[in-house]
Amino acid sequence: MHVLITGGGGFLGVKLARLLAAQGTIRGKAITKLTQADLFAPEPVKAPFPTEGIALDIADRAAVDAAFAAKPDCVFHLAAVVSGQAEAEFDIGMRVNLHGTLNLLEAARHAGNRPIFVFTSSIAVYGGEIPEMIEDWTILNPQTSYGAQKAAGELMVTDYSRKGFIDGRGLRLPTVTVRPGKPNAAASSFMSSIFREPLQGEEANCPVSEDYPIWNSAPRNVVANIAYAAEIPEEDWGQNRCLAIPGQTNTVREMVDAMTRVAGSNAAGRITWKPDPFVQKICAGWRAHINPAKALRLGFRQDSTFEDNIRWFLEDDIRK
Amino acid sequence: MHVLITGGGGFLGVKLARLLAAQGTIRGKAITKLTQADLFAPEPVKAPFPTEGIALDIADRAAVDAAFAAKPDCVFHLAAVVSGQAEAEFDIGMRVNLHGTLNLLEAARHAGNRPIFVFTSSIAVYGGEIPEMIEDWTILNPQTSYGAQKAAGELMVTDYSRKGFIDGRGLRLPTVTVRPGKPNAAASSFMSSIFREPLQGEEANCPVSEDYPIWNSAPRNVVANIAYAAEIPEEDWGQNRCLAIPGQTNTVREMVDAMTRVAGSNAAGRITWKPDPFVQKICAGWRAHINPAKALRLGFRQDSTFEDNIRWFLEDDIRK
Repeated sequence: MHVLITGGGGFLGVKLARLLAAQGTIRGKAITKLTQADLFAPEPVKAPFPTEGIALDIADRAAVDAAFAAKPDCVFHLAAVVSGQAEAEFDIGMRVNLHGTLNLLEAARHAGNRPIFVFTSSIAVYGGEIPEMIEDWTILNPQTSYGAQKAAGELMVTDYSRKGFIDGRGLRLPTVTVRPGKPNAAASSFMSSIFREPLQGEEANCPVSEDYPIWNSAPRNVVANIAYAAEIPEEDWGQNRCLAIPGQTNTVREMVDAMTRVAGSNAAGRITWKPDPFVQKICAGWRAHINPAKALRLGFRQDSTFEDNIRWFLEDDIRK
Repeated sequence: MHVLITGGGGFLGVKLARLLAAQGTIRGKAITKLTQADLFAPEPVKAPFPTEGIALDIADRAAVDAAFAAKPDCVFHLAAVVSGQAEAEFDIGMRVNLHGTLNLLEAARHAGNRPIFVFTSSIAVYGGEIPEMIEDWTILNPQTSYGAQKAAGELMVTDYSRKGFIDGRGLRLPTVTVRPGKPNAAASSFMSSIFREPLQGEEANCPVSEDYPIWNSAPRNVVANIAYAAEIPEEDWGQNRCLAIPGQTNTVREMVDAMTRVAGSNAAGRITWKPDPFVQKICAGWRAHINPAKALRLGFRQDSTFEDNIRWFLEDDIRK
């Protein structure tokens, strides 16, 4: 099994690569090669099989075709321009998130080997006038360009699969928190930084009110679910290859209290609470109450307490 | 008001052009020019204002940009590769239905005058594991490439509107019946031909069983609703610019009986009933029970009996 990860240098991509290196197989077949692709060639993970990092701009159709000359058997498509940037720089978002995804799907189709194709979508696809509780049959009505581009990608993943071009599956990721590293241009960036920075002894600002609810999942669970998506037999997916994976709903206040329970009270004191209308406007369109019935039926794992998110951050990711 | 109709040589496009010629205004402003664009330059309708027919392949970005040099104030985007062809010839469907729509949206955006942009989507966007009754918040889960391409177009119409690039609105058309003319490559083609051909003295085949239910609307109502879509104030649309317009649910048997009541019993005798698995497979994914609550609230008109569909065909469209 040759595995290709786009966004393979990002934090989820690297964690996924490490997990696959430890796991060694997909659907019981040995992984024979792992390619991490990103805008700049990433440092490949260590594994008991050959690994490589390659530079790939998914918006460049010819480059994508070239990357598929090796006919990867399993593609994890994580590369994306994040929500804040896709909103501020519309053309870049369209080029990477929509046309980049189309380029990958076309290359996967023309490779001719019907690869497994795992696409990471986002809860940013939800919004607008819909019932409070989101079900598997709730309309995707994104209120950001990022969400619209992801939702369009989902439609294509399902259609390319229905046509037999790929064996696709798409996952609407919850907000992934606590992310390691630095704040980024995602409007949801604060959902990690208000924990990460204080736990690392620094200040961070919370731009929304403390009663703002967040549908979230810990990196460990998200990465495990992305890898698991490739394992599920094709016939179990039904007529939509994309779904919301599990998560948990917590208000900012509940999350901060969980941090205090796990790591003491000093961290919470480093959070400032200055409202940011730009971020609030985007966040107001997001949803926090999701019933991931189909994903649970298919065996995806669910978060149980935000204390885990804090604990695992301290174990896996805190800056040493 | 300069109006541009893509698919302006098709049967809906011509009917829409005639309606606009008679109406003379959009949102109370005089129409000053009407351009009907199609793959081959159509014969323009007669109107009390200048009209023209132009050749335009919407898959050709440069040609689309050139057509928008005139900065149309109101665009009706009807051009599409129909469902049967988009299923059989995947690349053509993608090029016209997805990329063609993207080309028009980009050209409309860069024209800079924020045109009204009416997009015709289809009930082919519905399908898969969803509740029997479709509501305004039901997921678009198309089971044809045509439907997937239309659903992706809807996402972009809403997002381009949210961004302020256009003033978009998208309508999921019911099956339009009775269509004039000849059978085409739409899988739904029989839904007109089993009435049209018999009423014109010819045989036609029904490839589905007589209890197959069809969500349908008469051309008069569909065209009136397309024109009406441009009239609705922007602020009334809410956070989704696309919706299912009204129609009525009838089984094939009910429709045939309505034909008999309006036009006598000879016509029904000209229908043959030979099943067609290709058409049945596509039709099995379509839905017939839709609650168009938002559209009714916005004032779109609803069909009341299939006898009207037959009567209006005899008045407007039967081959003389």
